[in-house]
Amino acid sequence: MEKIKVSIFGATGYTGIELYRRLKVREDIDIVALPSKRSPGKKYIETAGSLVGAEETLTEWNVEETIRKSDVVFTALPHGETFEIARWTKILGKKMIDIGSDYRLDAEQYQKWYGLEHQIPEAIQEAVYCIPELHRKKITKDTWLIANPGCYPTSIQLPLAPLIEAGIIETTDIIADSKSGVSGAGRGLKQITLYGEQNENVNAYGAGNHRHKPEMERHLGELKGVAIKILFTPHLMPMTRGIHSTIYCTSKDKVTEEQIRDLLKEKYKNEKFIKIMEKGNYPHTKWVLGSNYCQIGVVYDQDTNKIILFSAIDNLVKGASGQAIQNMNILLGIKEDKGIENLPVFP
Amino acid sequence: MEKIKVSIFGATGYTGIELYRRLKVREDIDIVALPSKRSPGKKYIETAGSLVGAEETLTEWNVEETIRKSDVVFTALPHGETFEIARWTKILGKKMIDIGSDYRLDAEQYQKWYGLEHQIPEAIQEAVYCIPELHRKKITKDTWLIANPGCYPTSIQLPLAPLIEAGIIETTDIIADSKSGVSGAGRGLKQITLYGEQNENVNAYGAGNHRHKPEMERHLGELKGVAIKILFTPHLMPMTRGIHSTIYCTSKDKVTEEQIRDLLKEKYKNEKFIKIMEKGNYPHTKWVLGSNYCQIGVVYDQDTNKIILFSAIDNLVKGASGQAIQNMNILLGIKEDKGIENLPVFP
Amino acid sequence: MEKIKVSIFGATGYTGIELYRRLKVREDIDIVALPSKRSPGKKYIETAGSLVGAEETLTEWNVEETIRKSDVVFTALPHGETFEIARWTKILGKKMIDIGSDYRLDAEQYQKWYGLEHQIPEAIQEAVYCIPELHRKKITKDTWLIANPGCYPTSIQLPLAPLIEAGIIETTDIIADSKSGVSGAGRGLKQITLYGEQNENVNAYGAGNHRHKPEMERHLGELKGVAIKILFTPHLMPMTRGIHSTIYCTSKDKVTEEQIRDLLKEKYKNEKFIKIMEKGNYPHTKWVLGSNYCQIGVVYDQDTNKIILFSAIDNLVKGASGQAIQNMNILLGIKEDKGIENLPVFP
Amino acid sequence: MEKIKVSIFGATGYTGIELYRRLKVREDIDIVALPSKRSPGKKYIETAGSLVGAEETLTEWNVEETIRKSDVVFTALPHGETFEIARWTKILGKKMIDIGSDYRLDAEQYQKWYGLEHQIPEAIQEAVYCIPELHRKKITKDTWLIANPGCYPTSIQLPLAPLIEAGIIETTDIIADSKSGVSGAGRGLKQITLYGEQNENVNAYGAGNHRHKPEMERHLGELKGVAIKILFTPHLMPMTRGIHSTIYCTSKDKVTEEQIRDLLKEKYKNEKFIKIMEKGNYPHTKWVLGSNYCQIGVVYDQDTNKIILFSAIDNLVKGASGQAIQNMNILLGIKEDKGIENLPVFP
Repeated sequence: MEKIKVSIFGATGYTGIELYRRLKVREDIDIVALPSKRSPGKKYIETAGSLVGAEETLTEWNVEETIRKSDVVFTALPHGETFEIARWTKILGKKMIDIGSDYRLDAEQYQKWYGLEHQIPEAIQEAVYCIPELHRKKITKDTWLIANPGCYPTSIQLPLAPLIEAGIIETTDIIADSKSGVSGAGRGLKQITLYGEQNENVNAYGAGNHRHKPEMERHLGELKGVAIKILFTPHLMPMTRGIHSTIYCTSKDKVTEEQIRDLLKEKYKNEKFIKIMEKGNYPHTKWVLGSNYCQIGVVYDQDTNKIILFSAIDNLVKGASGQAIQNMNILLGIKEDKGIENLPVFP
Repeated sequence: MEKIKVSIFGATGYTGIELYRRLKVREDIDIVALPSKRSPGKKYIETAGSLVGAEETLTEWNVEETIRKSDVVFTALPHGETFEIARWTKILGKKMIDIGSDYRLDAEQYQKWYGLEHQIPEAIQEAVYCIPELHRKKITKDTWLIANPGCYPTSIQLPLAPLIEAGIIETTDIIADSKSGVSGAGRGLKQITLYGEQNENVNAYGAGNHRHKPEMERHLGELKGVAIKILFTPHLMPMTRGIHSTIYCTSKDKVTEEQIRDLLKEKYKNEKFIKIMEKGNYPHTKWVLGSNYCQIGVVYDQDTNKIILFSAIDNLVKGASGQAIQNMNILLGIKEDKGIENLPVFP
Repeated sequence: MEKIKVSIFGATGYTGIELYRRLKVREDIDIVALPSKRSPGKKYIETAGSLVGAEETLTEWNVEETIRKSDVVFTALPHGETFEIARWTKILGKKMIDIGSDYRLDAEQYQKWYGLEHQIPEAIQEAVYCIPELHRKKITKDTWLIANPGCYPTSIQLPLAPLIEAGIIETTDIIADSKSGVSGAGRGLKQITLYGEQNENVNAYGAGNHRHKPEMERHLGELKGVAIKILFTPHLMPMTRGIHSTIYCTSKDKVTEEQIRDLLKEKYKNEKFIKIMEKGNYPHTKWVLGSNYCQIGVVYDQDTNKIILFSAIDNLVKGASGQAIQNMNILLGIKEDKGIENLPVFP
Repeated sequence: MEKIKVSIFGATGYTGIELYRRLKVREDIDIVALPSKRSPGKKYIETAGSLVGAEETLTEWNVEETIRKSDVVFTALPHGETFEIARWTKILGKKMIDIGSDYRLDAEQYQKWYGLEHQIPEAIQEAVYCIPELHRKKITKDTWLIANPGCYPTSIQLPLAPLIEAGIIETTDIIADSKSGVSGAGRGLKQITLYGEQNENVNAYGAGNHRHKPEMERHLGELKGVAIKILFTPHLMPMTRGIHSTIYCTSKDKVTEEQIRDLLKEKYKNEKFIKIMEKGNYPHTKWVLGSNYCQIGVVYDQDTNKIILFSAIDNLVKGASGQAIQNMNILLGIKEDKGIENLPVFP
């Protein structure tokens, strides 16, 4: 059987490394290019000592040529850097999975939130935004571009979607309070991500104003054609990986905790990667570490008529590269959990 | 000048140790007894290697005798274990500061939330619940018992109080999402507080159902004679010390972020330990570590008309032993910041 | 093809969980029993929330019956608890891999260091102590018992063995200074392994007196029939997983760093899991986290004629359960890296 | 009483911040200048949010003027940047304490190890290198320049000095294996000090080749006029503060562990900050965190005739700014522990 030829644009960041380490050990995948703008020719292992056994060197940033020799192209790049790649992927009839944020918003919102005119708005139209458990049916044989969801949005949409679809909560009165490990801030050198500054530290940032807010509102809204308003507050935690989201919703009618739990269980009953916690149990980021799993919990507070949802994912796996591989598998008709079947690393 | 004679009931827990380490180096304090039920006679330093130079041994658990030779008694004990101590403190005309939770609720609520009948309800009446920046005027020369506030309640009431007093928020629609370091769970041996289980872990617990909820509702309500309803969700963080609270309130009228910031600044303008963050800045637990300071931030989200308050304290200092010392200083007419004047430990 | 039937005695500890999580996703393995003395009948997932999807319950501690239905039995138990299991494994003609310490020393040393008379000394004789890269040839079709090496000894013997075999160092003048993550202390409840006590902490323990010392001296000695003397000092680190060993040896003759590096490279040139660092590079525990890899580095200090060796492994993988699976694979003639082929988790 | 006027060159690094936070709360100190090359005019608190209440702005880098208005000048700068400051300090008859490394080695060694010609070698002659417990007698009323010892050298010389003075170990056969928190690498932006790269990581660096090696050899040698040879291997730990050193020496004659412990106790019997651990107890970095204390332990290994010394300090306190304040106190005839009397922060 011929191997699938894969390239990774942005292989030296944290999501790129997670992608590589999972694809490299698959017998059905061939990694054919790791294009780098800054250091073509450099040995890949010199960029991260964990890449034991990696013999690749970073390749030239030659977009057309790279895509020509690939079946699937992954992009893990800052926003605004994938336009040429998307253009060539389409021209050459290949597949592209963008782990970045260039195809998650419509063109107008993109300009508003990223301060940048989108150069190929038609690609946004054709892109499939895909959390597999919610959107995998949208992928067809013609799909050539996947907009891989953001880490926070994955952790928030998975628990919320069934409640929105069921029409049981006020969709414009949602608060999402998320807690993320430091790897979510990327591998760039910033003072706040230094060990000495972030150990023993918790802080909020960008409250009400984060770019993942319009992403969630757009795609949750499309589930059922309703307007969604989310007050979203991200926080940085003293840990490397993991996102925990606590989501406060107002119930339209009286419900019981059990009814909501049943609704979540029913929705995800065939989903390997989604685990609904039993009564009294809460998701723990530690319990999904290094895996593609998502744990979801629920509490109903009678006193305030609020439904509280909890979720835990690994931001670099289900929140990025793991989900990207899941999407690739679907796109290519491969077993959906291939390469991401491992159980969480514990302790 | 004669020294103040102090005893600590519960000296081997985390709050007891923090108390000791701050009182020990004061030239105006004499630590006269460290009563222990389990290990009287044991060297104090054998219970924590950080107690360098401590020559004390744990003393017999003799309540009357201990109080007789003390001017001030600190109790850092599990709930229900201070009744006899309070009784003798009053009889003998001494002062008592309870860092635990026996005098924070009224007798009825106490029974409901702690599952225990309160044995000296009259002491609750006479106790002064005191976050100094909010309640110090209640302390009089007759005050003999201070109910030192809980760690979460301190971090939540300090930012909320000025808004409640000003009457600008809906007081029954408040959500408090708090994140605490592991030391908040105490020094007892539990699987969840093992390093291997809590490193790289974030989880919620006791959502809507934590004993600190009625404490906050009671004391915030008394500020202005209004009913308070708080949906409170505590979380455990992979760090040792620190609490960060994110509080969501609904504004009664249109306001600006600046107005709220000004209101907070005005309220706390003479308070050394309270720091209001400037626009765009957020409290960080790391920035108050090991100190009695509290940082408070605010964001107003026009889209949802929500005021978001942020606060950071060290749970063992401003959230427990530091505040207890602050209260002792007030009670005895000593300079209020004595023994807790240090700046945060950084990094 | 028929699946291999496997049981795990001691499935609820950290090594048991690591074993389970790796075996569970293999299509050629069937986990048939998880015997538990304390809680037979309890759901396995209730013992660790990370066991997402585990449907097993802990089974009765019935040794004979368990082994009868198994092909391979893993034991991850405190010392002295495997004797009956070994006896039945042999009687029933099955295979056993002991991740504990019951078959690593000879009977006399065992009694001396563990304070316990060994009940089946003949099993020690028949057991194969096996770090695959050093001893895999000792495994024959008759081998029924593998003594899986300790975590510290694995990290120390891998770098040292080639130098001892080459006869270039003084074998009775070796110092090994090892640094281990807290998971090495197990999952039992001890004050020292509490998050609050171990975060920001480094300490030595059991210097010169650890049970892993005779294990290393015995098995390194057998490599070339020489006496070995190691001064071994283990340290606890504020991290969950990983062992880093720094080993100081005296060179018999003048050598260069390059010669030693070449010797290490030559020895391990066909070994997938062993990586010799290039000049100027040092092993990092982070770079082998969650994997079966071992990184080895070397520095020669001309001034003191000392060769310094460095190694990094994950104590729960190459130092325990990963190596146990590697040994099982060899024992059964399966591809040696099956189930442990993943690259390190980074970051 | 007039206050002591103090300036800090290099106030925005970790040692500068530790210095500031301790001096700021002293009633006998006035901080008169915080000169900055890069950002004069910037508010000091903007460089670290932990500087609650700091109203200072960074001042102009005007060396002469700064020193003219100061009594004592602290320098916490990269090597080679203090020469002009030392020159003016001497001219103007003020005192200077260099927390950096410009006056620790003789001029020749300085050039060799720092690759830089020393511009005022006569200042090295006049400087007093001072670990107070070992060298405080060298400080006289004429002393104008203190070379504050390095963090590793402090942790290694304190346990070793009594043994060298007593003449009981081979002074050219010493191995020091040190483990440091990340703050020792400074506040500069480096990939290795990112949270994501250093959490769960241990690695050695600069083995046999670190600039602190000649510092220790020089000053230990001067204690008794003997040649010292130390093989020194530093390691980076996943923690913020703290250094733990494990030191292996060869005993000249048969000794007992007790004899060495007694020798250490005798040497330091009047030293508040030095604590000798009792038999079976080991120093823990957590037990000295945030304090000026140093814990020292000892084990004698009969089998190899090695004496193993252990020490723990906080690298930013006893290893830098705390010791600098201790030195300033001695220099000015103030109570030696003033401003550094606090007990360790625990947990």
